[in-house]
Amino acid sequence: MTRVAGPVRIVGAGLLGTSLGLALRKLGVEVIVSDISRANQALAIDYGAGREAQPGDEPKLIVVCVPPDHTAGTIANELNTHPNAFVTDVASVKLQIVDELEALGADLTRYVGSHPMAGRERGGAISGRADLFIGRPWVIVAGEQSRRDAINAVTDLALEVGSVPVNMEAIEHDHAVAQVSHVPQVVASLLAGRLISTSAQEISLAGQGLRDTTRIAASDPALWVQILSANAAQVTPVLRDLAADLQRVIAALEDPHATGALSTISRAIEAGNRGVERIPGKHGGSHTNYATAIVMIDDTPGQLARLLVEVAQIGINLEEIKLEHSPGAQIGLVELSVLPEREQQLIADLTARGWRLA
Amino acid sequence: MTRVAGPVRIVGAGLLGTSLGLALRKLGVEVIVSDISRANQALAIDYGAGREAQPGDEPKLIVVCVPPDHTAGTIANELNTHPNAFVTDVASVKLQIVDELEALGADLTRYVGSHPMAGRERGGAISGRADLFIGRPWVIVAGEQSRRDAINAVTDLALEVGSVPVNMEAIEHDHAVAQVSHVPQVVASLLAGRLISTSAQEISLAGQGLRDTTRIAASDPALWVQILSANAAQVTPVLRDLAADLQRVIAALEDPHATGALSTISRAIEAGNRGVERIPGKHGGSHTNYATAIVMIDDTPGQLARLLVEVAQIGINLEEIKLEHSPGAQIGLVELSVLPEREQQLIADLTARGWRLA
Repeated sequence: MTRVAGPVRIVGAGLLGTSLGLALRKLGVEVIVSDISRANQALAIDYGAGREAQPGDEPKLIVVCVPPDHTAGTIANELNTHPNAFVTDVASVKLQIVDELEALGADLTRYVGSHPMAGRERGGAISGRADLFIGRPWVIVAGEQSRRDAINAVTDLALEVGSVPVNMEAIEHDHAVAQVSHVPQVVASLLAGRLISTSAQEISLAGQGLRDTTRIAASDPALWVQILSANAAQVTPVLRDLAADLQRVIAALEDPHATGALSTISRAIEAGNRGVERIPGKHGGSHTNYATAIVMIDDTPGQLARLLVEVAQIGINLEEIKLEHSPGAQIGLVELSVLPEREQQLIADLTARGWRLA
Repeated sequence: MTRVAGPVRIVGAGLLGTSLGLALRKLGVEVIVSDISRANQALAIDYGAGREAQPGDEPKLIVVCVPPDHTAGTIANELNTHPNAFVTDVASVKLQIVDELEALGADLTRYVGSHPMAGRERGGAISGRADLFIGRPWVIVAGEQSRRDAINAVTDLALEVGSVPVNMEAIEHDHAVAQVSHVPQVVASLLAGRLISTSAQEISLAGQGLRDTTRIAASDPALWVQILSANAAQVTPVLRDLAADLQRVIAALEDPHATGALSTISRAIEAGNRGVERIPGKHGGSHTNYATAIVMIDDTPGQLARLLVEVAQIGINLEEIKLEHSPGAQIGLVELSVLPEREQQLIADLTARGWRLA
């Protein structure tokens, strides 16, 4: 039995709105999907994210999932149109929206800001997934005037779609996402932007490091212009600090033989070591170091299954699995990640069963 | 029958040396492993990367796998000690090594530089893997004096361990790796370094984007000080361009309402879109877009195997597979990547077999 009381009205059928609709429909919640684009709305409804709005609808909870620039206006409008509903939003910035709502004279008792830390570099209803929120932090930003039952309704929404609610003030949220999301986006975009002038042969040397550091550079420019400008007050100081760090490294590299140059470079790399260690693992725990075993398999449909059947027979739970095909050779490499204390058993048992371990 | 004539002498039993030894031993090539650290050498030999050197050894090919600062001196020494052997190295910079070799008066006819584009953020013999080079570009840098048979020997080495040889001049190589490897390393390190001052709650909001952009920040500072200072001439101009791009974005964010500010930000994100599109996919082909299906499974050892057995029965080859556990709920999410034209069949057949697709 879900704690989310329907109908839930979702305004904006992009990635987040559609994903939320899909997740709620799976829970059996009645969902109304609305988008100013009839095509978007029809697509999301086709996907199963909910039904069209009807006259007389009385949503209990409204989730505004429109781009940041339109979020405050849409919230104010929904609060007016549905005087008995609680309203939340999912925008990536929170302080500016509260400011705009105050300027609009909105009824802030029924509004609670929120921000699910979920996304993909591909947007749109077409990328919607019911599992998008599972295991992700969902920041709840209650204002001073927010009613307790409104806060509870939004918290229940987050919990029911599998997220982990995190309570924060708007300014805390904006400062946090500047550091863990907005600044990394700027940096990845600028780094990828430098690749435009590389030759085909140069870029052919790219490895996983470059792919990882630039993956999010595929994100939507229109959305990010809104996010970055709305959170400029928090993003800019972090970028300035980063620019100062960069200038120090450049100065050191301009004369690597000067006194202190090498230690400046070393300190920058060491600081990166310490920083990356602070990032929690995939499931919010501490940085996880799994042990890995690499198994070579023939690159045919049945081989991977046979391997995993045998891993299951050995009785070891896989934490992660990666599959790599090697070009030319008809061989696949399977990287099995297990808890470190199970590694020896896994390797011994797979070897005994005749698997080729790299 | 391998084209690599042994014995091959590997000097330096770190990640690359040990991995190369393991790969060559699998091919049945006689490998001699030498390291100034007796402990490293013993560890690599224990792992099966080769045997200890013996008086009277006459290696046909010597691969110098020591840190960049010691590479030229070690090459010169090996050329002198083994007057009938070809010598190559695997250092991440090439021009400085040739300059140093010329200054040392080394016999450059028997030397060919090389650089396998393979690595991991973890170093040392303990991280060695026989499959490290499979499918990776291996840059061959032949000098003007390099003998044809020496070039062939190094090219065969690359081919036999599964790499793709790429011929480049030293300066071309150094310029290319500055862009695809060295600058991304600096940027990832600086970005991760900024995380040191975040609070535990702030960092708890980190997602896959931050993890990806900072993963290589875990790399070894001692090694990277050598690489960056040796390739400073190529790295510095790229970092300067990046710093100028960053300053433009900072200036725009300092006053997002100024004329042209938003378009400056937009252009930066758009340039990132275009840059990331240029990066070849995992196997050197064009950027691959697989179709993905998400299947929810009970998080128990046998479930994943049963799923993959059925995928095999359906007859679809998996291109990639990712496993995610959701905390709390005893559910795992399996992301199956297949060629786009197989997606519909996969989803239809799995659904028909009763699997829950997200």
